[in-house]
Amino acid sequence: MKSDTTGTLVVTGNDLNAVVTRVGVDRLMDELIGSLTERLGRHDDAQTRLIKRDGFMYDYPHPGVLEWMPAMVVGQQAVVKVVGYNPSNPGQRNLPTIVSTINVFDVTTGRLVALIDGILPTALRTGAASAVATEILARSGRCTVGLVGCGAQAVTQLHGMSRVRDVQQALVYDIDPAASASFADRVEFMDISVEVVERSVLERESDIICTATSADIGAGPVVDDAAFKPWIHVNAVGSDLPGKIELPVDFLRRSLVCTDFLEQALAEGEAQQLEPSDLGPTLSQLVKEAGDHVAARERPTVFDSTGYAVEDLVAAELFLRYATEMGLGQTLMVERLQGDPRNPYANLILGKIPAGVAE
Amino acid sequence: MKSDTTGTLVVTGNDLNAVVTRVGVDRLMDELIGSLTERLGRHDDAQTRLIKRDGFMYDYPHPGVLEWMPAMVVGQQAVVKVVGYNPSNPGQRNLPTIVSTINVFDVTTGRLVALIDGILPTALRTGAASAVATEILARSGRCTVGLVGCGAQAVTQLHGMSRVRDVQQALVYDIDPAASASFADRVEFMDISVEVVERSVLERESDIICTATSADIGAGPVVDDAAFKPWIHVNAVGSDLPGKIELPVDFLRRSLVCTDFLEQALAEGEAQQLEPSDLGPTLSQLVKEAGDHVAARERPTVFDSTGYAVEDLVAAELFLRYATEMGLGQTLMVERLQGDPRNPYANLILGKIPAGVAE
Repeated sequence: MKSDTTGTLVVTGNDLNAVVTRVGVDRLMDELIGSLTERLGRHDDAQTRLIKRDGFMYDYPHPGVLEWMPAMVVGQQAVVKVVGYNPSNPGQRNLPTIVSTINVFDVTTGRLVALIDGILPTALRTGAASAVATEILARSGRCTVGLVGCGAQAVTQLHGMSRVRDVQQALVYDIDPAASASFADRVEFMDISVEVVERSVLERESDIICTATSADIGAGPVVDDAAFKPWIHVNAVGSDLPGKIELPVDFLRRSLVCTDFLEQALAEGEAQQLEPSDLGPTLSQLVKEAGDHVAARERPTVFDSTGYAVEDLVAAELFLRYATEMGLGQTLMVERLQGDPRNPYANLILGKIPAGVAE
Repeated sequence: MKSDTTGTLVVTGNDLNAVVTRVGVDRLMDELIGSLTERLGRHDDAQTRLIKRDGFMYDYPHPGVLEWMPAMVVGQQAVVKVVGYNPSNPGQRNLPTIVSTINVFDVTTGRLVALIDGILPTALRTGAASAVATEILARSGRCTVGLVGCGAQAVTQLHGMSRVRDVQQALVYDIDPAASASFADRVEFMDISVEVVERSVLERESDIICTATSADIGAGPVVDDAAFKPWIHVNAVGSDLPGKIELPVDFLRRSLVCTDFLEQALAEGEAQQLEPSDLGPTLSQLVKEAGDHVAARERPTVFDSTGYAVEDLVAAELFLRYATEMGLGQTLMVERLQGDPRNPYANLILGKIPAGVAE
């Protein structure tokens, strides 16, 4: 009997960068948006099973979260992304706020088939998800995008939106002036005019707004909707913990609100502020019935993006395909799968090394 | 500002085998039993937080489970073990039923500090946990151990028990004759007489019984308690899914039943068959008040072992300490933590590689 003992492909952040560099960041984002749209368009809860994320919230040594996001394609693979969210990382430790790793398992054997750095895929797939929502819900034509929160996620948010809309200008605001001041440099390659503005200017001038903040629990909302344009579309990305919200409840009530993952959004997203009956379609429903929502482009709309494991699945598949094609990553025999499967001490005993005498 | 970018220590199954070979399997089991006893004796839910395991149960391509078991030592590290349980693995794919990997995270940064093969640690720590329970609840002196189910877990169960009791004889039974027939060879190093017997003989002659089966959901119990000795102690290891049980409910009712993790045992263990008021102390309470339970050695007792993430924490710490001391394992920069933490595209842009033109 031949065992499947092909090992674990470890794809590091440097491998991912090599993929992005060779493929091109625009093409990679376009492919991710395309794959995600295709995947959401045929999503079926029975075939791709999801479990609402769970994790540890903590206040010591600083406020943060460690959580896991699982998705399983029945009979094929499961993806479990483990995510650390530590908003003090950039300022105090020069590390990203969101640090994560993606585990890919073969559900036939339980083997870990791949371990992938999750930092870049998380940023990219969150941008791609907003792009999918923006493509359907935002007014078409030239537009101005407002970014509230100018951290790592804002970079891929603007990038994703710029792939589906003709973004002429980005108006940016962050409570940390260092974050807003450095934003133009970080998105230079997108060829979009970037202006650091007062929040009120951003709220008044933007056709599309993206909120991607590390607002504390109970501190939101982070915008005031009084001057919003009638066709405003908001990608609300930061709300992902019980009590953490970014948008005013009155604005949500007058908007078409699409969640990525209904149960999770009701627990952790902007949807916490609403009843299920106040909510519009999920992102996958939206993709399936995109034609029915053209009129929504002229009214306020919100994509309540809490983070959806289907996005991780699509991003992991894309990067694994490229890494394999390009011969990137290294294969390690992490799990010891050789020897008698009924003997945890197999190699010790079979090797005739007497127990307890070594050293 | 200096970042913590020391990488992920990957400790493979071969590294673990090297540890066991050098330390000696008896000494390693003794240390694990000692560390677990010490850890349980000072366990505090506020300092070591646990979340009941969750996962995907599936029927296709065969019945199995993929689940995750998280534990966090507040302000220090978190361990998330991901476990595949596929009972058809040994017979159909020559792989272990339980395949797992242990992720160790630094909760200050969210970084993955270590990835460890979980197959051997899981088998060892499950044996060590039964040893801790056996030491407190089983009659002392020479004894006969009965093993119902002779797979991988039975090896470390017998090993663990043999380190705390003078086991003269093991009576073994498995519905798969290949599993029971090969058992003596697998435990040869323990110097215990092994006899394959009818289940009724095992039930009548054993002072301690361990059930470690892959019984189907709804198929249990796997033993009949009619002929049990009055001082019988049972380590019930196999019950770890809703509907999966190994022991008769009447036997549980007349026994002192100790759970490893109360909430989980009520959902997935033998305790599913009982009310919370029917249950005795948890394993950690038992260790704390061991002196109060001496009389229990003369009556029927059960350790309802569903699998406890504190055990994984202790096993991971022990193997990581040895691997580090012995220079085993390899450090990989899995996560890309260098560069501007607010720029997911940092190395691309800073490297002046124009986006989209490569390839």
